[in-house]
Amino acid sequence: MGVDPGLTRCGIGVVDADAGRRVELTAVGVVRTPADRDHAHRLLAIETGIEEWVRTYRPDAMAVERVFTQHNLHSVTGTSQAAGIAMLVAARHSIPVVLHTPSEVKAAITGNGRADKAQVGAMVARICRLSEPPKPADAADAVALAICHVWRGPATNRYAEAVAAAQSHKQRASWTSIKKKQGTV
Amino acid sequence: MGVDPGLTRCGIGVVDADAGRRVELTAVGVVRTPADRDHAHRLLAIETGIEEWVRTYRPDAMAVERVFTQHNLHSVTGTSQAAGIAMLVAARHSIPVVLHTPSEVKAAITGNGRADKAQVGAMVARICRLSEPPKPADAADAVALAICHVWRGPATNRYAEAVAAAQSHKQRASWTSIKKKQGTV
Repeated sequence: MGVDPGLTRCGIGVVDADAGRRVELTAVGVVRTPADRDHAHRLLAIETGIEEWVRTYRPDAMAVERVFTQHNLHSVTGTSQAAGIAMLVAARHSIPVVLHTPSEVKAAITGNGRADKAQVGAMVARICRLSEPPKPADAADAVALAICHVWRGPATNRYAEAVAAAQSHKQRASWTSIKKKQGTV
Repeated sequence: MGVDPGLTRCGIGVVDADAGRRVELTAVGVVRTPADRDHAHRLLAIETGIEEWVRTYRPDAMAVERVFTQHNLHSVTGTSQAAGIAMLVAARHSIPVVLHTPSEVKAAITGNGRADKAQVGAMVARICRLSEPPKPADAADAVALAICHVWRGPATNRYAEAVAAAQSHKQRASWTSIKKKQGTV
């Protein structure tokens, strides 16, 4: 699951990947919060929205865009808070989190770390075999983040796999104990 | 409840105030997160900690320090995310949130918007009739935020009171319906 954090629009993209580089788009969308709502309730709406996405798709890992503060102060605060909430929801569900910078994502998807939004959208559409890029751009960026995470270095993937393996082991352990209680093991 | 947000130490102070300016310290402490934990789990620990404080003390309002980005990039991200989480928890419990800048707090407590930590701590101790300032400084700052909120302009207090009144009305309404079910009303 890729998350392009934002207070007004938080893009979310979920992809499924096989052992190779082939990527399938599972779901893409945006969690929106109304600008006339107070800040605290907007943050709550983002949490509720991301929580719903995570419960629905149960991702193996979450890739969140790393936020930089060289831009507008006000929007950076909202953006970094939305990123923090995405990370918080992931941690709550024991989902490993990886941060990627915008240029890492652009480089992974287009081969150019300074590619523009249209180019990223076009490559997302091509990689996922869609007739056109997901809209709005935040949604396409979230899918790009998810693809970037799948394609990048094995280290982060190995970490995700180790956590997933540990969890499925724990899951099996608890199933075994349930079966034992029922006398079937 | 005042919250001095931070990733390593999040100060929390709870005060009780009468119709005048007299302030009573109810509780003060710090939610700490270990620096060797990953960022996402530290944010989760902050949420869990603040949630516990809110459930325990059920404050009428939450005053959070407004975070500025002129300082170190990394710590600002953590600080603004901790502030966002405090606001999120408040919104979840329908507690109105007010932000105060550090200089507003210093001015309200000491009369000097550029007072140092020691001066703020000393005034917090004097106002709450304590033998010494709460420690660490983050805890004293959180109490200062709570006092500042109680003392500052009537607008924010009127808002808090209106919400509290609406909630206690709702509460009474549900008590009434419970009593009705039991046949005592």
